[in-house]
Amino acid sequence: MLEISALGFDVFGTVVDWRSSIARSARPFLIECGLSSVDPYMFADRWRALYQPAMEACRTGARDYVPLDTLHAEMLDDLLSSFGLPRDGHETVDRKAFARLWEQLSPWPDVPGGLLRLKAKYILAPISNGSIALMTRLSRHAGLPWDAILGADLSRTYKPTPRTYLAAAEALQLDPSQVALVAAHNDDLHAARAVGMRTIFVPRPTEYGSEQTTDLRSESDWDLVATDFNNLASALHC
Amino acid sequence: MLEISALGFDVFGTVVDWRSSIARSARPFLIECGLSSVDPYMFADRWRALYQPAMEACRTGARDYVPLDTLHAEMLDDLLSSFGLPRDGHETVDRKAFARLWEQLSPWPDVPGGLLRLKAKYILAPISNGSIALMTRLSRHAGLPWDAILGADLSRTYKPTPRTYLAAAEALQLDPSQVALVAAHNDDLHAARAVGMRTIFVPRPTEYGSEQTTDLRSESDWDLVATDFNNLASALHC
Repeated sequence: MLEISALGFDVFGTVVDWRSSIARSARPFLIECGLSSVDPYMFADRWRALYQPAMEACRTGARDYVPLDTLHAEMLDDLLSSFGLPRDGHETVDRKAFARLWEQLSPWPDVPGGLLRLKAKYILAPISNGSIALMTRLSRHAGLPWDAILGADLSRTYKPTPRTYLAAAEALQLDPSQVALVAAHNDDLHAARAVGMRTIFVPRPTEYGSEQTTDLRSESDWDLVATDFNNLASALHC
Repeated sequence: MLEISALGFDVFGTVVDWRSSIARSARPFLIECGLSSVDPYMFADRWRALYQPAMEACRTGARDYVPLDTLHAEMLDDLLSSFGLPRDGHETVDRKAFARLWEQLSPWPDVPGGLLRLKAKYILAPISNGSIALMTRLSRHAGLPWDAILGADLSRTYKPTPRTYLAAAEALQLDPSQVALVAAHNDDLHAARAVGMRTIFVPRPTEYGSEQTTDLRSESDWDLVATDFNNLASALHC
């Protein structure tokens, strides 16, 4: 890991606890929508479940790149529709504002302090599917001391398309081998390794709640495995 | 100015004092090159004088976009050549490392504190001709608390091309009218206003030394004129 200059971070799940944050905000929104019997955690899970299929059209080129903010709003319309709400929405509910809650997620407790330690030694940037706009506002909300915002907007496609990782390294004028991806998802790390990046796994075993069955542990010989961001900072002598 | 969400900053001259910084570092470099009789401030001025012509080919499309880092290195070769040094360089001098001194410029004294005050209320980002790589490293060196790095790399052309300002607003998913450009150069502000941005002039009357004759004062009815970044923070109630 000696030649690493920058750490790129997956954000949703790795840096922020999207599920609890969305569920917390969903409760009053669901009541306003007349869906008070819907469990807000199930609501968060079903919203997130639409995430991969929504990006797939942009990955294949079937659809021109649109930022994740737009996909989040469309996914919300689909989700509410599946609960029987009309597509044109309730006048009393501001769906657009609610879809922007992805800008207001809470970080895992170890994140702000761990990132500050890491920042002393490494360039820090998200390599996320979130847009520059979303990541910028989320960083301000969650206190994430990034040095730059990289990710989907630069490559105009979504992870795990190789171009997204490569565009991030290129933007920093670094060889992929000088960048390590930090992620809680084994598939993200596989894609990063395929383009020559170094790989750091930090498990988030409750990202999907206490019943989570995936990504509980490292599934390959990643360059480093850390228990959280403070542990990572210690392992990297920050 | 009430609807402003983000402040975009010109960097070279407005945020950092490139001339003194380059001159300071140039002195030992010039000695190493056998050019000890060359005045380092004159050297800095002549390097910077090559800046606008170097970008022009990328603006017109005669040349594909290349990042400013590459132009700085080419400009240095041209400059040393004009002093009689062979183009292939001296083996004892690391020209590439010296060209990267643009990543290590010092901010004007009011900048770090002023930016921290402004950050409490506004999204802050450079809208500079510097690349993401250059701006990222410069920010770490100079302690600039940007929320995102915008500018030439996003538009793949250089200011004052309208696309560079527009790409910055678009990356934040803001209308240009929700962004104010902060600059010490009247021509930069003219270009920003032409695409619908708000405009803030902060004079830097010694950017080009004590004999400076340009941009000493506001040359139009900019939305705001401030004496420095702390004065700007106060004017914006930060």
